[in-house]
Amino acid sequence: MDKFTLHEDPISANCYKIRLTAALLGIPLERRLYSILNGETRTAEFLSTVSSFGRIPVLQIGDSTFLPESNAACFYLADAANPAFTSSSPLQVATLIPQDLLQRAEMLRWMFFEQNQHEVNIATLRYWLYVIGEDKLETSRRAQIKGKVAAGEQVLDCMEDHLAKSEHGWFVGDSITLADICLFAYTHIAGDAKFELSRWPSILKWCEQVKHVPGYIPMD
Amino acid sequence: MDKFTLHEDPISANCYKIRLTAALLGIPLERRLYSILNGETRTAEFLSTVSSFGRIPVLQIGDSTFLPESNAACFYLADAANPAFTSSSPLQVATLIPQDLLQRAEMLRWMFFEQNQHEVNIATLRYWLYVIGEDKLETSRRAQIKGKVAAGEQVLDCMEDHLAKSEHGWFVGDSITLADICLFAYTHIAGDAKFELSRWPSILKWCEQVKHVPGYIPMD
Repeated sequence: MDKFTLHEDPISANCYKIRLTAALLGIPLERRLYSILNGETRTAEFLSTVSSFGRIPVLQIGDSTFLPESNAACFYLADAANPAFTSSSPLQVATLIPQDLLQRAEMLRWMFFEQNQHEVNIATLRYWLYVIGEDKLETSRRAQIKGKVAAGEQVLDCMEDHLAKSEHGWFVGDSITLADICLFAYTHIAGDAKFELSRWPSILKWCEQVKHVPGYIPMD
Repeated sequence: MDKFTLHEDPISANCYKIRLTAALLGIPLERRLYSILNGETRTAEFLSTVSSFGRIPVLQIGDSTFLPESNAACFYLADAANPAFTSSSPLQVATLIPQDLLQRAEMLRWMFFEQNQHEVNIATLRYWLYVIGEDKLETSRRAQIKGKVAAGEQVLDCMEDHLAKSEHGWFVGDSITLADICLFAYTHIAGDAKFELSRWPSILKWCEQVKHVPGYIPMD
């Protein structure tokens, strides 16, 4: 098995997703920490070796393969979860990716939704309000807060609606998949972005369900 | 094989991606057209039958299964491309998804990049400047143009950098994958959003390469 190294900032739930996926699959990850705020992902060394785009997380596979994009890294780990991994997996399933063709596409549907509609609103608001601080925001960002709050609420309404109808309380099928992990990352800390999760009871219940999966690890 | 119906607006390249994927795989698609601008994706009927989130594209599979998110719909079609499809496929490959584990993750890396960084800047700018018109934009949107232009340029730089180093001129491996199709959709019409593609020669060359793939269909 290749050695995996996660280039990450613990403040980012995009990074946490990958750690949670690896933990549920029983895959060891070495962590390499950077501070986004201190510009450590913009150094010449980072840009030339880890990612020329200057973003984290990046999953390093072996010595020389670097895979950016959190949801792609989660997919890689779960896709690689063959029987060789299973023996050490806390889950009784070999993979977090459904075998069924339609369920696999539905899992990806929620993962793309997460990156296109959830992350760009809820994670961005959290970064602005919780990490940087509202009083330090540029005017152009401040002007976007209202729109992002409304879009974030619509995203949570959509998740609530889906989970309320879900027989097993998971996004797809009858067990946890990458869709749950990727959406959980920024949802369970949406309070940092000033979303009151008590407004969305099915989401709160689902968050508890995720926290009780064998092998679960919390965000730092 | 299930019958596929694409609920779409021809003005959207997210919808076009799915048509292009189906065309390359030789899969027939029935088209159901809506005008986003005229509110046709917000009617009570649309919300109750096609998608409660009021967004298109939605790929309808058979009579009662509705799959939102353009990249997930492309994945479903290609994932379903078993030998039964191959006989009518203009491509000599059964699927647009690599068999190799790492290449499959790299394909998804670019598809998530597309939804998280490309679409939210370049497609949004195109919608604002080309579909709505700059003079009709609300102040809050107008204030975001500068930031989205800069982010869009960084996205195109990242693609250019990758393609310039690519041995075969594709995003992943030695043939076209869903990564190329999903990125092509809004890139080849980035001129509508006032990006001068002649600044990115490897991207221009790659666009031509996509247009010469057997089975290629242009956007309406």
